[in-house]
Amino acid sequence: MPILIQDVLHIDRQVDILIEGNRITKVENSGSINPASLSGEVDIIPGKNRGVIPGLVNCHTHAAMTYFRGYGDDRDLMDWLENMIWPVEAHLTPDDIYWGSRLACMEMIQTGTTAFLDMYTFPEATAQAVEDSGIRAVLSYTMFDRWDDARAKLDQKNCHKYFELFSHYSDRVRFAVGPHAIYTVSAPQLQFAHEFAKEHDCLVNLHLAETYQEWKDCTKNFGTTPVRYLKDLGVLSPRLVLAHSLWMDSEELQILADYGCSTVHNPASNMKLASGYKFRSEEMCEKGIRVGIGTDGCSSSNNLDMVQAMKLASLLGKAWRGDPKATPAKEMFVAATKAGSEILRIDGGEIEPGKLADLSLVRLDIPEMTPCHDFISNLVYSASGSAVDTTIVDGKVLMRERQIPEYDVLLKKGVEVSNDLLRRAGRG
Amino acid sequence: MPILIQDVLHIDRQVDILIEGNRITKVENSGSINPASLSGEVDIIPGKNRGVIPGLVNCHTHAAMTYFRGYGDDRDLMDWLENMIWPVEAHLTPDDIYWGSRLACMEMIQTGTTAFLDMYTFPEATAQAVEDSGIRAVLSYTMFDRWDDARAKLDQKNCHKYFELFSHYSDRVRFAVGPHAIYTVSAPQLQFAHEFAKEHDCLVNLHLAETYQEWKDCTKNFGTTPVRYLKDLGVLSPRLVLAHSLWMDSEELQILADYGCSTVHNPASNMKLASGYKFRSEEMCEKGIRVGIGTDGCSSSNNLDMVQAMKLASLLGKAWRGDPKATPAKEMFVAATKAGSEILRIDGGEIEPGKLADLSLVRLDIPEMTPCHDFISNLVYSASGSAVDTTIVDGKVLMRERQIPEYDVLLKKGVEVSNDLLRRAGRG
Repeated sequence: MPILIQDVLHIDRQVDILIEGNRITKVENSGSINPASLSGEVDIIPGKNRGVIPGLVNCHTHAAMTYFRGYGDDRDLMDWLENMIWPVEAHLTPDDIYWGSRLACMEMIQTGTTAFLDMYTFPEATAQAVEDSGIRAVLSYTMFDRWDDARAKLDQKNCHKYFELFSHYSDRVRFAVGPHAIYTVSAPQLQFAHEFAKEHDCLVNLHLAETYQEWKDCTKNFGTTPVRYLKDLGVLSPRLVLAHSLWMDSEELQILADYGCSTVHNPASNMKLASGYKFRSEEMCEKGIRVGIGTDGCSSSNNLDMVQAMKLASLLGKAWRGDPKATPAKEMFVAATKAGSEILRIDGGEIEPGKLADLSLVRLDIPEMTPCHDFISNLVYSASGSAVDTTIVDGKVLMRERQIPEYDVLLKKGVEVSNDLLRRAGRG
Repeated sequence: MPILIQDVLHIDRQVDILIEGNRITKVENSGSINPASLSGEVDIIPGKNRGVIPGLVNCHTHAAMTYFRGYGDDRDLMDWLENMIWPVEAHLTPDDIYWGSRLACMEMIQTGTTAFLDMYTFPEATAQAVEDSGIRAVLSYTMFDRWDDARAKLDQKNCHKYFELFSHYSDRVRFAVGPHAIYTVSAPQLQFAHEFAKEHDCLVNLHLAETYQEWKDCTKNFGTTPVRYLKDLGVLSPRLVLAHSLWMDSEELQILADYGCSTVHNPASNMKLASGYKFRSEEMCEKGIRVGIGTDGCSSSNNLDMVQAMKLASLLGKAWRGDPKATPAKEMFVAATKAGSEILRIDGGEIEPGKLADLSLVRLDIPEMTPCHDFISNLVYSASGSAVDTTIVDGKVLMRERQIPEYDVLLKKGVEVSNDLLRRAGRG
């Protein structure tokens, strides 16, 4: 059934938006699209007191880590990983991953995110959660060989297996290779990932230059800095998406630009884990690098709210640069929508005829959006994801007036499975 | 009518809370308080799937600046003030201030704030808005003599006038002297404010050491740094509340501790205006300074959400220190509740018998609070103020299950008056 959104604020004018199939087909001045002129039934969504935004794209997360929200906060990195996260993660099952991902997808839908790039264990379970929740995702198979040949071979085999498996899902699910990091994945394996991605035309999702420790270890072990190391290995390409990208010099940014790589800013996780805070989005954009925004997983971020992530990215950019004009709201909004879509190769990210119907309506009749001198400023600087009212992905309404089917079931399952997981890990 | 909150999560246990008059009178294990044992009617609030928190205390804001939310973002400070804010501010009337403050109070009530320290023009209009909305506030008369004798005399007269005027309001409204800053208020006037506050036992609300420019000008004009300048003037006291307090050395922090002064961290505004980001809350707390959190006004922050302010304060503290253990959630929570109450001299800030009944219930049955390994971690790091469900101030329910009386009227008035203000300022 076509969807007609009537009289909604689009940046600074009121429009009607027609969605047919999974595409936006018309965006016209308010009142221009007559529902009677459309054949058959139409789902009419009133847009009064709402603003429309392209769906937010979360370019880096680990969805099923919802289980670890608030589990062991405020600790040193290794204490946290060794004593809290890893001992419990060892007990994760595909069923856990499915329900943890369902919870994550619900949180994203509720806060206006329509697509995400994921990296975690049992991606087939996350894929099923994405299918069932109606959201869109690119899911990485995590490669983690630690210079072990047997593991390297298994990971290579699994890339083929999952690529094939994911081809049977809907268009909303796509495969990516996910070499975890340069300190967990060997050079030949990074090269395999690059070649695999080239052959199958998929993304490569890699954590890079997240911490100063990683930078130091790289220069010590490989004799050069992270980006130069990847360049020397011949694995830079427009398919490469680099999460974090904090510890890089200007020449390295130029190298990334020359090879068409993308970077992803994860302000909440970078700040909370004290990984670093000088993400140079402005220099990256100037050089032509596509820059997206991510929340990272709930273990470190601790939510999946991209509206809050935009605000953090903007405020942090202004703070460390000492420049109130830096990283303005509108640039963060582009990073979270248009650039994110480009990075994930989704034909959306804009409210325009022909684009995929991945979008959200934001309430304007709430204190944090009142008065509305500037819709995007209000959204980025004042609202949170809770201002999102309606979310549509691939032409389907996934949340309408804050109502999500299965809401109570998914919350209950999330709690039950989390408790059960802790019990199995001897922490219950 | 007494209020009985049944079976609510308090930190890590389920309790019943009894409120009689404007005080909490009982906090007992869930199921211990039998409503039939209470005389007369009882307002029973179910606490299932809710956590209770002491009301959040916003220690620095300019409430009626809601009008300037998103008005001229992403500009240099002087461009923003001279071309956007000041020309419109010049047209503000008491009626504008009343409705702008009502909108602000509603936003605060909705996000769990029960008290605030304000500084703005026409404080009598803000006082009336506080009375009518049911929230609690300490309202400063802004002193701004700029070394002009006539203005200094007027401000002195007005301090007496407003102190007297505010004595006729309810206990929820109190007066403070508000010398704006050391670059807008002369030394004799700062001394007057100090003496006035001593005589009438009220707070002194002062912006201090907000920007490096202020620090430089102070050393140039007064031959010493901001805190030392105040010490030399003899105006340091336990009544002095210093908003921002960014540009201070360790010896200055020790001076503030010795005199019992309080400081207020405004992370959103400090980051957005690029004023500085190294707020040294840990060193301040170690020295025994009371540290509160504020949002600052909506012109710079751009909301009044203290839950988001706690998160920002924590993440920022970890980021610039490079220490993930720094500024933990629980310390930020204490700053926003207990310390804030102490700074504003409110006998609340804790869920304990005898304390003022200023508190909020937070929803636990939402994705961002699921699972709940740690309530306070979830609140600070994952939620936003939208998780607040019910707010009680002075024993009165101001919001119940997200419903606030007059919600629609107040939003509509906010928009109308804002449009009218812009028209009067020639910007409509």
